[in-house]
Amino acid sequence: MTPLVVGTSAIKRATTPELVFAVVRDALIAHAHDRTTVPPPLHLQFPDADGDCHVKAGWVTDTPGFAVKIATGFYRNPAAGLPTNHGLVCAVSARTGEINAILDDQGLLTAWRTAAAGALATHAMARPGAATLAVFGTGEQARLQVEWLARLRPIDTVLVHGRSKDKTRSLCEAFDALGHHARPALADEAAAADMIITTTPAPTPVLQARHVRAGAHVTGIGTDMPHKNELPPALFARAALIATDDHRQCLDHGDFGHAVRAGVTTDTSDTPVGLLLERPVERPDGAITVADLTGVGALDAALAAAVLRELAS
Amino acid sequence: MTPLVVGTSAIKRATTPELVFAVVRDALIAHAHDRTTVPPPLHLQFPDADGDCHVKAGWVTDTPGFAVKIATGFYRNPAAGLPTNHGLVCAVSARTGEINAILDDQGLLTAWRTAAAGALATHAMARPGAATLAVFGTGEQARLQVEWLARLRPIDTVLVHGRSKDKTRSLCEAFDALGHHARPALADEAAAADMIITTTPAPTPVLQARHVRAGAHVTGIGTDMPHKNELPPALFARAALIATDDHRQCLDHGDFGHAVRAGVTTDTSDTPVGLLLERPVERPDGAITVADLTGVGALDAALAAAVLRELAS
Repeated sequence: MTPLVVGTSAIKRATTPELVFAVVRDALIAHAHDRTTVPPPLHLQFPDADGDCHVKAGWVTDTPGFAVKIATGFYRNPAAGLPTNHGLVCAVSARTGEINAILDDQGLLTAWRTAAAGALATHAMARPGAATLAVFGTGEQARLQVEWLARLRPIDTVLVHGRSKDKTRSLCEAFDALGHHARPALADEAAAADMIITTTPAPTPVLQARHVRAGAHVTGIGTDMPHKNELPPALFARAALIATDDHRQCLDHGDFGHAVRAGVTTDTSDTPVGLLLERPVERPDGAITVADLTGVGALDAALAAAVLRELAS
Repeated sequence: MTPLVVGTSAIKRATTPELVFAVVRDALIAHAHDRTTVPPPLHLQFPDADGDCHVKAGWVTDTPGFAVKIATGFYRNPAAGLPTNHGLVCAVSARTGEINAILDDQGLLTAWRTAAAGALATHAMARPGAATLAVFGTGEQARLQVEWLARLRPIDTVLVHGRSKDKTRSLCEAFDALGHHARPALADEAAAADMIITTTPAPTPVLQARHVRAGAHVTGIGTDMPHKNELPPALFARAALIATDDHRQCLDHGDFGHAVRAGVTTDTSDTPVGLLLERPVERPDGAITVADLTGVGALDAALAAAVLRELAS
C-alpha cells in the first residue's frame, strides 16, 4: 500500500490556530509529566553546501500514532531561488508501525508548533500587564511569534531588531498592518522591553543581560544546535525562573546548556515549561524569567496526529 | 511540489544483485576511509505493542544525495495478519535539502543491503576453500544471506539452526531447491561449520565459542540493539581478526560491544570491514575470524541514490 501523501493545502484546511494551541499545550504538559518518548534528535551537516538536516521523533505515550520529522535547512538556497527549508513529517502507527501518512507540509507544522509553543510560554511567564514586545530576528518565526502571541494577549508596541534594515522595515509594516505599533529598535532598546522573543540562528548572544529590565520575560526559540547561542549566560544568572521545553535537549544544545557550562546556573535549575501551562505562574515582583525552547518531537507527533484526525473526520 | 513516491515494483525493476553488491562494497570502503557521515541512529520503543522504530541516516561524502530511513518492527503484527516490518527511505539532496523521492520499499532495500554486506564480509574473510555454511535463524535474512553468499562463492552444504522445526524444515527445502545440500542442525553442529552466519534477534548468544573450529569464520548480522547479543564474548577472545561495519555502532549496540564490556578484547581490536574488501584478507592458518555488522546508514544513502539513478536513466 502506497502511503498517503498529504500536501499543504489539505493541511491548511484541517488546521486552525485554536487546534494547534490546544495540541501543543497538551503535548508540552504531557512531556513535562514524562508521558512522552522523545529520543535525542539526529543531525547531519553539509558544510560545503552550508546545509543541515535534523530528524526528530516523538510520541505522546499511549496515543495511537508517533511522528518522525525530517527537516533540512540549506542557507544558500535563496540565492538560487529555492526555499531554505524543506522536509516532511511521517505519521506512523504506534500499534503496528505502519506509515499512516506522509505530511508534505513544507515546514508549516513545525512553524506553527514553534509559534504556538513560544506564544504559550511567553504568555504564561510574562507579567499580566506586559504590553511591549521586542522580537530579535526578521524571519518567519519573528513574524509568527508576534502574530500567535497576539492571539493570547493584547500587545501594544512591537520593537523589531534585525540585521537587515530592509527586512526589519518590512516586518514592522506587516505588524503595523495587524494593528500593532511597530518600529525598528537597536539591541539595547529591544532588550529593555517587557517581553522579548529571540528567533535568530545567532552563534553569539543577541542581547546583553544588563539591558534586560527587572520584571521582564525572555523566550529564546532560535538555539537548536550546540554552535548557536542567542541568550547570554548572564541572563540566566539573573533569572528567577528558567523554563525549558526539554531538559536534556536544552542542556545539550540550547541556551540553557551554555549558561550551565558557563557555571552561572546549575543543571537542575530549570522547570519544564509544560508545568507552567497548567496553572498561573507565580512570579515575584521584579523577577526576570527565561524560557529556552529547542523544539520537542512529541509536539510534532501530537500535531501530525491531530491533523490526520481532522482530515479523517 | 509533492515528493515522488517510488514503490516496490519500480525498485525491483531498477535493482539487480550486481548493482547492490557494487554499491554496498563501495559504500563500506568509503565508510572505512571516513568518507561518510553517519550520525548515531535514533530509536523509539513501544513496549506495550512489542514494537520498535529505528531511524538511520547517512551520506557518502561529496555525493549528491543522502538518505534518511525509517524502519519499524512490530512483533505481534503477524498474529493480526500484518507484516512485522514497515518503513521507507527518503532520498534527499545533499546540495539543496530537497526531498528527491520517497522510496516506499517495504524494507526491500534494507534487506538487500544487509544481505550484500553480510555476503561480502563473509566471502572476504572466510577461507577460500570453505564450503560448509551454517545459518542461525530462519527469517528473511537467513534465506538472503545464503542466497547472496552463493552468488560470490560455491556453497556445498548448508546447516540450518532455528527454534521452529517447521520454519527450519521449509528453509532447508528452499535451499535444496537452489541446489545446496541443506539440513537442520543442532547449535553445536552448526557452530562447527566452516562459515557461520547468525541472523537472529537473540538476547543471549546462539552458539558457544568452544564449538567453533579453528579456521572458521563467523558473521553476525542480528545484533542491532543493546539488549540483543548473538555472538558470545568468548568467540571474540578467540578471534585473530575482528571486523566491524561501524566501530562506534558495534561498540554501542553490537556483539563487539558485549565482548569489549566483558573485558575479553579491547575497544581498538576491530578493523573496518571496508578495508577487508579492498584486497585479499591475510588470515593465518587456523585463525578464527569474526565480522560484527550492525547496518550503516551510508549504505542506505548509496543504495537509494543508485536506485534513483537507475530509474532516471
